[in-house]
Amino acid sequence: MSTGKVTPISGFLEFLPAERLVEQHFLDVIRRTFELHGFASIETRAVEPVERLAGKGGDVDKEIYGITRLGRHADDATESELGLHFDLTVPFARYVVENAGKLAFPFKRYQIQKVWRGERPQEGRYREFTQCDIDVVDVGSLASHFEAELPLVIADAFAQLPIGPFVIQVNNRKIPQGFYEGIGLTDIAGTLRVVDKLDKVGAATVARLLEEAGATADQAQACLDLAAIKSTDLSFVDEVRALGVSNPTLDEGLAELAAVITAGMAHAPGVLVADLKIARGLDYYTGTVYETQLVGYESWGSFCSGGRYDALASDGRTTYPGVGISIGLSRLLGLLIGKGLVTASRSTPACVLVAVISEDSRPRSLAVATALRRNGIPCDVAPSAAKFGKQIRYAERRGIPYVWFPADEPTGDLSDPADAAPAQDSVKDIRSGEQTPADAETWRPPAGDLAVMIRRN
Amino acid sequence: MSTGKVTPISGFLEFLPAERLVEQHFLDVIRRTFELHGFASIETRAVEPVERLAGKGGDVDKEIYGITRLGRHADDATESELGLHFDLTVPFARYVVENAGKLAFPFKRYQIQKVWRGERPQEGRYREFTQCDIDVVDVGSLASHFEAELPLVIADAFAQLPIGPFVIQVNNRKIPQGFYEGIGLTDIAGTLRVVDKLDKVGAATVARLLEEAGATADQAQACLDLAAIKSTDLSFVDEVRALGVSNPTLDEGLAELAAVITAGMAHAPGVLVADLKIARGLDYYTGTVYETQLVGYESWGSFCSGGRYDALASDGRTTYPGVGISIGLSRLLGLLIGKGLVTASRSTPACVLVAVISEDSRPRSLAVATALRRNGIPCDVAPSAAKFGKQIRYAERRGIPYVWFPADEPTGDLSDPADAAPAQDSVKDIRSGEQTPADAETWRPPAGDLAVMIRRN
Repeated sequence: MSTGKVTPISGFLEFLPAERLVEQHFLDVIRRTFELHGFASIETRAVEPVERLAGKGGDVDKEIYGITRLGRHADDATESELGLHFDLTVPFARYVVENAGKLAFPFKRYQIQKVWRGERPQEGRYREFTQCDIDVVDVGSLASHFEAELPLVIADAFAQLPIGPFVIQVNNRKIPQGFYEGIGLTDIAGTLRVVDKLDKVGAATVARLLEEAGATADQAQACLDLAAIKSTDLSFVDEVRALGVSNPTLDEGLAELAAVITAGMAHAPGVLVADLKIARGLDYYTGTVYETQLVGYESWGSFCSGGRYDALASDGRTTYPGVGISIGLSRLLGLLIGKGLVTASRSTPACVLVAVISEDSRPRSLAVATALRRNGIPCDVAPSAAKFGKQIRYAERRGIPYVWFPADEPTGDLSDPADAAPAQDSVKDIRSGEQTPADAETWRPPAGDLAVMIRRN
Repeated sequence: MSTGKVTPISGFLEFLPAERLVEQHFLDVIRRTFELHGFASIETRAVEPVERLAGKGGDVDKEIYGITRLGRHADDATESELGLHFDLTVPFARYVVENAGKLAFPFKRYQIQKVWRGERPQEGRYREFTQCDIDVVDVGSLASHFEAELPLVIADAFAQLPIGPFVIQVNNRKIPQGFYEGIGLTDIAGTLRVVDKLDKVGAATVARLLEEAGATADQAQACLDLAAIKSTDLSFVDEVRALGVSNPTLDEGLAELAAVITAGMAHAPGVLVADLKIARGLDYYTGTVYETQLVGYESWGSFCSGGRYDALASDGRTTYPGVGISIGLSRLLGLLIGKGLVTASRSTPACVLVAVISEDSRPRSLAVATALRRNGIPCDVAPSAAKFGKQIRYAERRGIPYVWFPADEPTGDLSDPADAAPAQDSVKDIRSGEQTPADAETWRPPAGDLAVMIRRN
């Protein structure tokens, strides 16, 4: 087919093969970690009814993509209006209600899929991107220990990825809510929105904005004092107590956050931080909230966020509370790959290129490849019986570390060893140039060469 | 969020967790096989410009889904019209042209993604479905040995899947084309379209249709004779020769098909069949074509098709020939899962449920889980410190084969062994009821229990 002139579409990221291998490594580690923690995979269809995506207010701020059949016939006029999902939470909530009778609760699921948002594309913001979500959902009520266990799954996954140091910042909506109530503020959501700007506009501006919204100077200062509290151990509890505010919701929040930090201290010391300025999402989350930053790349924002919903889903009669975290994989890779921070050692899964001596002997090369593959060694067979130098360059261009030379059929004067061609296969490490005799039935590459190596630069 | 009433959307298949585990097993085997054969993964964005999807004729017969931003602003009016891809070949061709300068040719890629078609949904036909494609593409010319190697990759993948016996039917466009030319027929495409109906309408009707289209009775009979030829070895060549037609294109086709069948006989005896009635796709493929049927489920049609394109892609100056095969995974699973032919042994990756004795001792259960996970054993921790019977039922409902009981802290009169609680962890196979002492640092389940077992029923 003629493809003519081609230009990329802004906001729709595509990777070259070596970059895709980095992405696959991240996806594999994330999936394996989710599964080790007992989360079951689901995938939901890419589309939902627009009215479900838009929510109660018919809000299309989320920049929903609607879809329509271009070849639609008149008799399909009754089809409901559909749009592409913009996250994995809305479809998961729908899936839970739709399949409630067939699921075992508490239901722990992971979901790794693309989502679409018609936002203005910018660095790290795409119109098509991959999210990796875990959620635990239960019927009626949900045990709070899940709020402590979920960030440990993320800590396990991130610890295995070449992303450098990271912190998971944790807060609990009940802390600012109880605290604000305790100091006599009534507009909780409005106060949270202002405090959320702290990193961007600074303390003085936040204080001014709070006062403009009706807080006294003391109240504004108390909000700033609370937001300044941060600890990787339980010292945050005493620091909040020292502010002298008493409120039952605050107490509940402190106990829940202490449980999360305690679990973090046992499982992933230093990774979980109680950070009381975290306010994003506190308008829809009802308990614990999580944000995740790469140390040194804080300006990129959070790569992994989530929290607890008292009503993740509801069918009107039954309520399904849930807690979840979502890794923004495309954002993370957009940074790491885009900045050249993480690279793959080759552009193909093949660890070995099997050379071809002549087209007539291709079946012999294929037999070598079959033996290697049977032993789990990914390999490629040279596309043509070109000169060996050209075949080696085929491997070099792709970063394939080994070239396999099948034994030539003995030729020449066999009575003269100097004239007889080698009768045994050999394999060459083209990085070192070292060539050694080898048997395809038993040879194995060093473990570090079998899979593509993903490096942090 | 309130999800209200929920109804499935026709044509958009979703799996329950145990079904998804079947799908993941298929995806894993397919991916591993593609990678062992040296194919590199790419993913392309879900959208292409509608004009590219529609092709030269502006054809929307493919039931393209167009997408539009519902919250679109006036300043975006210049955005080009986009649609969801309906296969992976059109986007791959575009990707090759777009990235030609950065790819190493011949380029072997695999691509496993969802595609969308607004077709009328029916059994085995979905509006959203997953395709698993491999293609080899080169610049200018493509060695014909790739046409012999590609079906062997599929044979390797299918041989490892619980799908029962299957056959890959192979033909070559040059055989009917040369044969028809050799007997004096000129409307090659029209003749192929009629012969393609053979299985549905029978030989007598095909003969009548060919004669109505201008063929003589002898010509029609010759077409039927050719279409009747089928062999798992090279005997098809002599059978064609015996029809007494001489044509250079026919000769070329026979040689190419013989090479494919020869490779099949060496690598996967009995799986590849030269089947000269295969005509589907011969209007756009230019050489070898493939179809794949499950033995006993022939009426379901092909689950895996492909062929060679002399011009997979072109930018006007350079032509990129290619050969590819696509597994219709959703069709295959629609049959196997839909008919209950293949099932998973559990609905979660977890192999072990770690029981919780009391909420106070949850950290001890989490430590057991951490030790098991470190050894690659997926596990779950009981959601509550319920009675053990209830915890065991949690495992049973999900098909988790083992329940781990952490040692209780020694209690009671320790000087009286009968009164002291057990001090060692134990693990119970809840299928047999057998319970044995175990150490989380060293215990391993039998290999057959570690991963979910996928069974052909």
